[in-house]
Amino acid sequence: MPTPPDELQALVERYLDDLDLTSALGTLTEPMRHALGGKRVRPVLCLATGEALGASLESLLPAAAAIELVHSFSLVHDDLPALDDDRERRGGPSVWALHGEASAVLAGDALLAEAFRLSLSYGTAGVARELVESTLAMIGGQWLDIRGDGAREELHRLKTGALFSASVGCALAALDVPRSEQLPWRAFAADVGLLFQIVDDILDVTESDERLGKPHGSDERHGKLTYVSLFGLERARELAADSHAKATAALAEASGETDDLRRVADYIFTRNE
Amino acid sequence: MPTPPDELQALVERYLDDLDLTSALGTLTEPMRHALGGKRVRPVLCLATGEALGASLESLLPAAAAIELVHSFSLVHDDLPALDDDRERRGGPSVWALHGEASAVLAGDALLAEAFRLSLSYGTAGVARELVESTLAMIGGQWLDIRGDGAREELHRLKTGALFSASVGCALAALDVPRSEQLPWRAFAADVGLLFQIVDDILDVTESDERLGKPHGSDERHGKLTYVSLFGLERARELAADSHAKATAALAEASGETDDLRRVADYIFTRNE
Repeated sequence: MPTPPDELQALVERYLDDLDLTSALGTLTEPMRHALGGKRVRPVLCLATGEALGASLESLLPAAAAIELVHSFSLVHDDLPALDDDRERRGGPSVWALHGEASAVLAGDALLAEAFRLSLSYGTAGVARELVESTLAMIGGQWLDIRGDGAREELHRLKTGALFSASVGCALAALDVPRSEQLPWRAFAADVGLLFQIVDDILDVTESDERLGKPHGSDERHGKLTYVSLFGLERARELAADSHAKATAALAEASGETDDLRRVADYIFTRNE
Repeated sequence: MPTPPDELQALVERYLDDLDLTSALGTLTEPMRHALGGKRVRPVLCLATGEALGASLESLLPAAAAIELVHSFSLVHDDLPALDDDRERRGGPSVWALHGEASAVLAGDALLAEAFRLSLSYGTAGVARELVESTLAMIGGQWLDIRGDGAREELHRLKTGALFSASVGCALAALDVPRSEQLPWRAFAADVGLLFQIVDDILDVTESDERLGKPHGSDERHGKLTYVSLFGLERARELAADSHAKATAALAEASGETDDLRRVADYIFTRNE
């Protein structure tokens, strides 16, 4: 019987709360902890993938947490005045708005380094490799984004897709799943990452500030290309349904107990915040 | 016959010039490459340690380069207006002064991630662990520094000492040197790191802007505690001579062909830029 997504989320929450950050960081851990809020979609995906493949959740938690730390690192730096200049995040002040820019730069750096530290707790270097490669792709995506270069698909693949791919990929690496059996899992990760992004773009125009935890319409204000600005709301909704169907189909190809992952995909499809 | 330090430096130079950066980073590699100037003290230390232990220089180059990338990452972020606000570095504009703050934030992030990627090319995770732990200590040191907290010794140990320690430690890890044989090497690393810092503090007050490649007296302007401001120039020079003698003594305890490391320590002691 797979663990429901909300229980997986609670596990991640507890693990992050109890996580020993490097003591040499001193009071820098305050802005770091402030940065670590969120819906935990990526770590839940990592845990659910591992569970579907028969791993213990315990063994997957460092990898899942590492992915969340990389995600948080990227938000802390992206919110900086010189980049997206976002004062709000998850219903409160962003790290730089609360703690200052210097804290945000260093807290982001430390979150990234702590993520790598966690990924090195495995017997195989594969988990760390997945993490570092997706991090580099994500940075490349953010670079394209702030310069306004690149097609929406390329931007998405790098900026959001890479870390979704790593969320599944780290579980595959931790379990030493052979390359030849990884294809449907990787396809699922790509589809569910795209689904997440399209839904995110839709919510940015349809939902209230309060529900989003940040001012809605921020994509438009930043002049960002989104699936909604490119294709309109109706077509974006069709594309989301499409990605959801493809993700579900990919799961049918994967060997393992995938009910739980299906529920994660459903949650991502139907979420409203 | 050990390789002279200037040949080691040339090897590092060539390796960094030829280094394939992740293609997804696109044009972000320009500010990254701009950040990669410098004297290569840390990678030369890594190569010389490896050579003293009988390793091929080839096999040590990824670790040596990774250390230099971490060092460069830290300078790029430390120079930012919100941190040390330094417009000049190594006789030219710092990364943010030339390419803008957003570029400097992301180029720093990418340098750190590329460093981790390089450190994962070894069969053992030990190299990556050395690197990540020293990175975390260094970030903790920079945090203390910008807040003006902490004693000079603690600050040095974290901000400079940790990466010097890793320069030696990565070579030990790459060669799987048993813990029991590491002690004199680690002592040497600590002494030579301290030596480097004291000499750096001295040069900041005694040398011209041109020779330093940045405005001299910047420590004083930033209100930073240095070995000179704390103990005076005369006493700082004595402390440097002390560290040099201790580093040399530590080498005598280490098993291996250490002539070359002695020359690196001499260079650090007598450098004037």
